[in-house]
Amino acid sequence: MATRPIVFGEITGIEEGHWFEGRKEMMPTSFHRNWGAGIDGNGKEGTAAIVLSGGYEDDEDLGDEIIYTGAGGNDPKTGKQVKDQSWEQSGNAGLLKSMDEGLPVRVIRGHTHESEHSPDKGYTYAGLFSVVEAWEETGKSSFKICRFKLVYSGESSVKKPGQIDLDYGEREKKRVQGSIVRIVRDSEIANDVKRLYNYECQVCGTTINTKSGRYAEGAHIKPLGRPHNGDDNPDNLLCLCPNHHVMLDRGVFTIENNFTLQGIEGQLVIKEGHILSDQNLKYHREHVFRGKV
Amino acid sequence: MATRPIVFGEITGIEEGHWFEGRKEMMPTSFHRNWGAGIDGNGKEGTAAIVLSGGYEDDEDLGDEIIYTGAGGNDPKTGKQVKDQSWEQSGNAGLLKSMDEGLPVRVIRGHTHESEHSPDKGYTYAGLFSVVEAWEETGKSSFKICRFKLVYSGESSVKKPGQIDLDYGEREKKRVQGSIVRIVRDSEIANDVKRLYNYECQVCGTTINTKSGRYAEGAHIKPLGRPHNGDDNPDNLLCLCPNHHVMLDRGVFTIENNFTLQGIEGQLVIKEGHILSDQNLKYHREHVFRGKV
Repeated sequence: MATRPIVFGEITGIEEGHWFEGRKEMMPTSFHRNWGAGIDGNGKEGTAAIVLSGGYEDDEDLGDEIIYTGAGGNDPKTGKQVKDQSWEQSGNAGLLKSMDEGLPVRVIRGHTHESEHSPDKGYTYAGLFSVVEAWEETGKSSFKICRFKLVYSGESSVKKPGQIDLDYGEREKKRVQGSIVRIVRDSEIANDVKRLYNYECQVCGTTINTKSGRYAEGAHIKPLGRPHNGDDNPDNLLCLCPNHHVMLDRGVFTIENNFTLQGIEGQLVIKEGHILSDQNLKYHREHVFRGKV
Repeated sequence: MATRPIVFGEITGIEEGHWFEGRKEMMPTSFHRNWGAGIDGNGKEGTAAIVLSGGYEDDEDLGDEIIYTGAGGNDPKTGKQVKDQSWEQSGNAGLLKSMDEGLPVRVIRGHTHESEHSPDKGYTYAGLFSVVEAWEETGKSSFKICRFKLVYSGESSVKKPGQIDLDYGEREKKRVQGSIVRIVRDSEIANDVKRLYNYECQVCGTTINTKSGRYAEGAHIKPLGRPHNGDDNPDNLLCLCPNHHVMLDRGVFTIENNFTLQGIEGQLVIKEGHILSDQNLKYHREHVFRGKV
């Protein structure tokens, strides 16, 4: 369907808050190239735009933070999930690509779940978002769904190469920032865990020596924040090097209850007194781990 | 001077916007334990609070983003730099520790640079900030200064262990997030560079294989954003694994114009057609690199 080249980022003349009467109007500018699908993208190039149409019963729209359900497996009439979704599905694979490469995703909010005669119809451009997490769940209809967390990117109105030329006029030119690929946060509790391991990665033993001391990252097994709501607690925390932190978060490997690794070779180093929650390990295996590469 | 234990994060009864008539009022609660110094912290525990007093000619206060000049070397009367600052100085070493461990820093804005009889006197609590960058510069007075970038942490009103107990009353309890340790952003240009290297780290050759493809990070030699204003351009970009990205940003190693590494063993892999800017490499060596560990 999508024969025009994919375009990432802002598009001339379509500012945040822009209202579209229908999906057709989004096509000539490549703002969203697909008439029927909610996701405009693929696993090779990434995903450039999504429509939040209220078509998926599991979507959650919190304004600057969106929990988005991937494509596939739903009945187009009722929106109900009728079979499993897959990470190989083109739009879902595209959202993973956008996450890994920090590509900006245009988010479009549809108002068409209201009656067609409601004044609240059409679509609004909500701005550029970054895909910051992907995981799988059993949806309300007991089928597997692919889920994505997107956060509003804020400073987004910048020209990118290969993007349709923008006429800023008097608009302030914002600094090129690109999309967020990942945010690493630490807490006092994470620091306790890091100190216990003397800042050595529990997977590979690596530590990063800086002038101010050793550097490691506190990695949560069950992710913090919506919708996982993992705890900031030692039984949910590992001391990892940045490489293995990325790999844990991206589901490249996971951990058995006996600390054997799955997805990569090896065994997690566990110091005496550091007790991991079996529940959290199970959550990671079932929701975050994406199987052997 | 500081004999009470250091306290990180929020302190009971002192909310953002709290006004202090003088520095003395900050001491009983350990909000800021040092009468005379701008920085409350040390290299072992980290820095818990800083005062922006207008005392340093090189400070820049942009609201949610602050460029803070470290301690030492200035004339207390004029605020002018009269000798070099050092990373070993206790407060500066504490800010590095807070950066590496993601410890929250209370920022206090002083209004005492105005006349003592001005209505605009006293101090205001500006909230919790994260230290996200540290580098060195030649200040306006041609002496070396240690510089820090702090960003407002937003969702900060959470109780941390070891912190004085908070009585939130009806206030919404926010999710534990901790401070930002690092933000990784990527752009279309960074992706071009990563593709050129097939997502293999230019320092160690590592790549991270995920289900959606290979993962690497685009690392800027001269940092993006204020005050460095490095470009998002291939001549300022490297393809690195997360570990070497952290090490480049933290100044653990740097790169000679002939691509020999300094600080760690090795040689940067450079593909034909990828030309790095000598200016940017020089900037990294002079401002970001902190010498052999």
